[in-house]
Amino acid sequence: MGAEAVIGGKLLQRWFDAPSWLLALALLLEILPRAVDGSLHVCFGVTEPDAGTDTTRISTFARRKGDGYVVNGRKVWITKAGDSQKMILIARTTPRAEVAKPTEGLSLFLIDIDPAQVHLQAIPKMGRNAVQSYEVVFDDLFVPESARIGEEGNGFKYLLDGLNPERILLAHEALGIGRAAIRRAVGYAKERIVFDRPIGQNQGVAFPLAEAVMRLDAAELVARNAAWRYDQGLPCGREANTAKYLCADAGFKAADQAVQTHGGMGYANEYHVERYFRESRVLRLAPVSQEMVLNYVSQHVLGLPKSY
Amino acid sequence: MGAEAVIGGKLLQRWFDAPSWLLALALLLEILPRAVDGSLHVCFGVTEPDAGTDTTRISTFARRKGDGYVVNGRKVWITKAGDSQKMILIARTTPRAEVAKPTEGLSLFLIDIDPAQVHLQAIPKMGRNAVQSYEVVFDDLFVPESARIGEEGNGFKYLLDGLNPERILLAHEALGIGRAAIRRAVGYAKERIVFDRPIGQNQGVAFPLAEAVMRLDAAELVARNAAWRYDQGLPCGREANTAKYLCADAGFKAADQAVQTHGGMGYANEYHVERYFRESRVLRLAPVSQEMVLNYVSQHVLGLPKSY
Amino acid sequence: MGAEAVIGGKLLQRWFDAPSWLLALALLLEILPRAVDGSLHVCFGVTEPDAGTDTTRISTFARRKGDGYVVNGRKVWITKAGDSQKMILIARTTPRAEVAKPTEGLSLFLIDIDPAQVHLQAIPKMGRNAVQSYEVVFDDLFVPESARIGEEGNGFKYLLDGLNPERILLAHEALGIGRAAIRRAVGYAKERIVFDRPIGQNQGVAFPLAEAVMRLDAAELVARNAAWRYDQGLPCGREANTAKYLCADAGFKAADQAVQTHGGMGYANEYHVERYFRESRVLRLAPVSQEMVLNYVSQHVLGLPKSY
Amino acid sequence: MGAEAVIGGKLLQRWFDAPSWLLALALLLEILPRAVDGSLHVCFGVTEPDAGTDTTRISTFARRKGDGYVVNGRKVWITKAGDSQKMILIARTTPRAEVAKPTEGLSLFLIDIDPAQVHLQAIPKMGRNAVQSYEVVFDDLFVPESARIGEEGNGFKYLLDGLNPERILLAHEALGIGRAAIRRAVGYAKERIVFDRPIGQNQGVAFPLAEAVMRLDAAELVARNAAWRYDQGLPCGREANTAKYLCADAGFKAADQAVQTHGGMGYANEYHVERYFRESRVLRLAPVSQEMVLNYVSQHVLGLPKSY
Ligand SMILES: Cc1cc2nc3c(=O)[nH]c(=O)nc-3n(C[C@H](O)[C@H](O)[C@H](O)COP(=O)(O)OP(=O)(O)OC[C@H]3O[C@@H](n4cnc5c(N)ncnc54)[C@H](O)[C@@H]3O)c2cc1C
Ligand SMILES: Cc1cc2nc3c(=O)[nH]c(=O)nc-3n(C[C@H](O)[C@H](O)[C@H](O)COP(=O)(O)OP(=O)(O)OC[C@H]3O[C@@H](n4cnc5c(N)ncnc54)[C@H](O)[C@@H]3O)c2cc1C
Ligand SMILES: Cc1cc2nc3c(=O)[nH]c(=O)nc-3n(C[C@H](O)[C@H](O)[C@H](O)COP(=O)(O)OP(=O)(O)OC[C@H]3O[C@@H](n4cnc5c(N)ncnc54)[C@H](O)[C@@H]3O)c2cc1C
Ligand SMILES: Cc1cc2nc3c(=O)[nH]c(=O)nc-3n(C[C@H](O)[C@H](O)[C@H](O)COP(=O)(O)OP(=O)(O)OC[C@H]3O[C@@H](n4cnc5c(N)ncnc54)[C@H](O)[C@@H]3O)c2cc1C
Repeated sequence: MGAEAVIGGKLLQRWFDAPSWLLALALLLEILPRAVDGSLHVCFGVTEPDAGTDTTRISTFARRKGDGYVVNGRKVWITKAGDSQKMILIARTTPRAEVAKPTEGLSLFLIDIDPAQVHLQAIPKMGRNAVQSYEVVFDDLFVPESARIGEEGNGFKYLLDGLNPERILLAHEALGIGRAAIRRAVGYAKERIVFDRPIGQNQGVAFPLAEAVMRLDAAELVARNAAWRYDQGLPCGREANTAKYLCADAGFKAADQAVQTHGGMGYANEYHVERYFRESRVLRLAPVSQEMVLNYVSQHVLGLPKSY
Repeated sequence: MGAEAVIGGKLLQRWFDAPSWLLALALLLEILPRAVDGSLHVCFGVTEPDAGTDTTRISTFARRKGDGYVVNGRKVWITKAGDSQKMILIARTTPRAEVAKPTEGLSLFLIDIDPAQVHLQAIPKMGRNAVQSYEVVFDDLFVPESARIGEEGNGFKYLLDGLNPERILLAHEALGIGRAAIRRAVGYAKERIVFDRPIGQNQGVAFPLAEAVMRLDAAELVARNAAWRYDQGLPCGREANTAKYLCADAGFKAADQAVQTHGGMGYANEYHVERYFRESRVLRLAPVSQEMVLNYVSQHVLGLPKSY
Repeated sequence: MGAEAVIGGKLLQRWFDAPSWLLALALLLEILPRAVDGSLHVCFGVTEPDAGTDTTRISTFARRKGDGYVVNGRKVWITKAGDSQKMILIARTTPRAEVAKPTEGLSLFLIDIDPAQVHLQAIPKMGRNAVQSYEVVFDDLFVPESARIGEEGNGFKYLLDGLNPERILLAHEALGIGRAAIRRAVGYAKERIVFDRPIGQNQGVAFPLAEAVMRLDAAELVARNAAWRYDQGLPCGREANTAKYLCADAGFKAADQAVQTHGGMGYANEYHVERYFRESRVLRLAPVSQEMVLNYVSQHVLGLPKSY
Repeated sequence: MGAEAVIGGKLLQRWFDAPSWLLALALLLEILPRAVDGSLHVCFGVTEPDAGTDTTRISTFARRKGDGYVVNGRKVWITKAGDSQKMILIARTTPRAEVAKPTEGLSLFLIDIDPAQVHLQAIPKMGRNAVQSYEVVFDDLFVPESARIGEEGNGFKYLLDGLNPERILLAHEALGIGRAAIRRAVGYAKERIVFDRPIGQNQGVAFPLAEAVMRLDAAELVARNAAWRYDQGLPCGREANTAKYLCADAGFKAADQAVQTHGGMGYANEYHVERYFRESRVLRLAPVSQEMVLNYVSQHVLGLPKSY
């Protein structure tokens, strides 16, 4: 079951609470369980080439037409779009110039990925090649009104609801990679003999691994605490962001040190650690960059003035 | 109530479990509550100038004489010795050459600090000047047998019992300094206007503070977890060492960044952050150095061969 | 001979080139040699409590009166003011609101420190206690026109001329502290025996010292290159700023590691390394903060847009 | 012209000085110019799977037979072996057990890579895929005595002679990658607009790039100084090792930051920075690992006792 399914599941579960959802009940009763059991693949369509992190700048537009919408635009980096039947899509329904706040006028849809109107192109990338990510072009895709999630214009608000669990989830992914990397590094450090001793007997090899494992331990507690708070319905923005930042950092450093521990062999595909190194790198960039976490903490935890 | 009192209290409490302690019960019923309420000061005498971290190398010797011992030797860095009535002292009772393992032949005592036989000299130092630390010379100090804690020769084992809570306690001290430093830095960053904006509006000022607070948050969870495990009687060596390492690191970095945030004013006594900077520095050295924590984790968590 | 004398010397030397200086020739022939040989002390009065790094915001004002000026205002951190006979002072001569660019309307003076009109108060501080730094209040100080350096209103331009050599000079100070710290640390690491071996035989002790010395070596080449370019009359903004940044960083890290190498003794005054640690810390704040160097390089080396 | 050619060229040039080389003069007059102009490819065969960094442990053996040697054994990571006509090979000619010092009994050869006796297998690896590196098995390869470089048993000494220029050369490679990465990152940071501003206007993006460029500048001076010393025939072990360490570090950090600057796009092949990130990573492992440089500096610059 992919990360996206979990996030999708979480999102859908929460949306049940909204009164406007009675109408969508039937649909969700079918979608939710299948997204969770993996028989239905749902991808997540937010990022656009020209908007970047600033989601209010997206230009994919869903224009009212008859009893539905016609969608045109372009998304990028949509993971698993080629293996999915459906996509949670955020699109503008009112132009940015016509809304009071830039976060208004965006709507969320659960669309069918119809190959006739949705064109996909995989993006060759450094790692995470167990799944593909795609550039997606919407060309006059018709979406019925019943596929809209919640009220028109409130999509950004619903979206925010899904960001914390996504961060918590991917924090755990980073942890997992970090743990796997340490396991391999420690195994190698015990067995590899150079200068008549296991290399792990040298503090120059052992200490960075020891530090890496302590950083993972700490990051793990933060991630678990964030997940617990989310499950309890408590506010968890600080915890989820901190978890994503520290786990991504600790996971990457563990993988980097696992490469180093292997010497030249760390560079060979055969020992897997170079793959962990490439895999873990993305978590410092996505689902939110380390810099945007630092902005969040600066403003919302420390109360400093916004810098941009 | 000083850290030493808590540690002392914890130590004494645990020793109650040992059967040989029935004899000392009366003593302890008096000592323990007064150490905890602060009316009796007890200091902790382990470190020696020539032994360093390697406690089995201490040379302070308690020679059997009549119904007690005569102690000679030299300790260093004994905090609060000048304000204390008593000291928990570790000394050799059997020469290192005559025991099977170097950790044997050491005994623990709860001595009276008698100025006639115990000579103190304060050590001028960079910080922590709310309390003094002393060089201590024992010159034919007589100690009655009843002042021995537990069995003769088992002192090192009892001592180990106290190391984890000491690390957990001082981890919390580092956290406290770190939090205080961040509080002052954030306050200053909001109010100080340079180039027509609060300096905290610059990411170069805000981001290091945001990172510092995330590192403190994570280290705090590790320290709380260690304390909880200790209180439950669970093994906590990994957690206590990790807590000490990460809290000392995060506390110092927070203080360092608080100095930086204050610009030139960070160097003036008036703004307190230079003091936090000096205070927090010691926690990377004591009660155990960062390097010895890394050795502990390398061997006992990762299972790597001992490097020294 | 203090850093200030050198800077002062350099500044004066350059000002000879300006045609308006014929008049001041006699004065300079006397001042310059004595500043350099140390018989005359000249301090440098730029920083103000409310302006910070943004020198154009200073409010010390020199109002035209008769054949001179009357100066009122407040400076802070003026090093050696109490031991100096003269001060190079920058003050506004035209209000900020009345000039085209904020850098205009500032003038430079070489004033006598007359205790009747110039009130000094030493600032208690963390280190660098071989010299004192002062808060300075000017209370209707009369300054003759002949004490003005160069043209009225061009003071900021003249000031800039002195900033690069000041940075280069203090970069070398940081290097010197770093080298001294390494020397002591290495000496201690060879002699201090713990666990039956010199502590320097542990990579956990040796590697950070080795890294520190490599960083000092590299920073030294940058500083030498900057000094050479300055002496050749070549542009050296990039080199001087880089030198200050890297030397301050390397010097402080060397001192920090020297403390760590000494274990608990690193915290005692007796071993000097705690002093190096305190001394070297200021060079990350002054004469220009690390952040302002990063701003300089971002804009003027990389060509990125100004961030503030 | 590949790095290996330059190194090969340098090595051969130096060997001319050795008196025993008169005999090989003809050979070298032909080999040297062609290695340098790139018409003849020479690879460098040192590393073995079981010896690692400890070259004295290699087991490839050249046994005397007739007017030559028969070579058996296994090398690993031999770059360009598949494209080369010749290999500089180090092999044992006297068993380790029979020599006074482990560095004796090794000999250097300039062999022909005859596919009948030399079996190659490319190693799939994370980067540097412009050239392949190979596992190489020697199966009864006959090598005439005239192909031996210098005296039998002195190969290790000759080898050492080539290590400094190899380190200097690859330091420059790391610099080049770092500079290219910065160029792309700065270009992107100026053009990419997020939140209505070029991302490079944020200090969180600009400052790490500014620091990276300063570290590259410093590392470059070290590398140039090392190269100059080598060319002058001055000792350059300290400089060459420091250059390799700092350039590899600065080059990798620059590439890492270039990835970060590109956000998600940093992960796509299209923007090249992920390739720089993978390419630069190897220079922290080879031709000598960062740890072995730290060991060199600890012992030979700081004079600390050997740790392994
Ligand atoms: C492998 C992969 C899978 C992905 N899967 C999905 C998916 O399934 N669905 C989806 O919608 N998206 C997906 N993404 C996109 C991902 O969420 C974005 O790449 C990420 O949020 C960063 O946005 P960006 O790439 O537009 O970076 P940009 O916004 O262009 O940022 C570029 C750089 O500038 C920095 N920056 C920007 N603004 C500021 C500021 N104000 N202050 C400081 N720094 C700033 C950023 O931190 C970053 O370092 C994926 C990306 C990758 C690489
Ligand atoms: C302010 C202060 C208060 C103190 N209060 C007390 C007190 O109340 N009671 C008390 O008993 N003690 C006290 N101490 C002493 C403190 O516990 C010791 O200083 C500390 O344990 C470190 O020991 P050391 O100073 O002997 O360092 P050393 O053992 O001499 O170590 C020196 C350096 O070498 C490193 N090192 C040593 N061996 C190794 C190795 N094998 N591998 C890697 N690195 C190694 C250390 O990490 C350290 O960096 C205090 C110290 C200070 C500074
Ligand atoms: C011991 C000592 C001796 C001194 N001697 C002298 C002397 O002899 N003569 C003299 O004139 N001055 C002297 N100074 C003053 C010194 O030059 C200033 O302290 C220094 O330039 C920093 O200015 P500030 O303290 O006003 O910091 P501020 O300008 O208040 O800065 C505070 C913090 O905010 C950061 N910051 C501010 N603006 C930005 C921005 N746009 N982007 C990112 N970060 C920003 C700074 O980097 C710093 O970290 C001395 C200072 C000290 C500590
Ligand atoms: C892409 C690539 C190209 C290469 N090309 C060539 C080539 O053309 N010809 C050639 O001969 N070789 C080549 N090599 C091999 C390269 O020189 C070695 O990989 C490198 O020297 C490290 O040796 P190792 O891999 O055996 O590491 P190991 O010696 O196994 O070391 C493993 C780890 O342990 C550490 N370690 C070992 N001993 C100690 C100690 N005492 N103290 C502290 N740490 C220690 C190392 O630093 C490293 O991190 C190449 C390697 C790569 C990856």
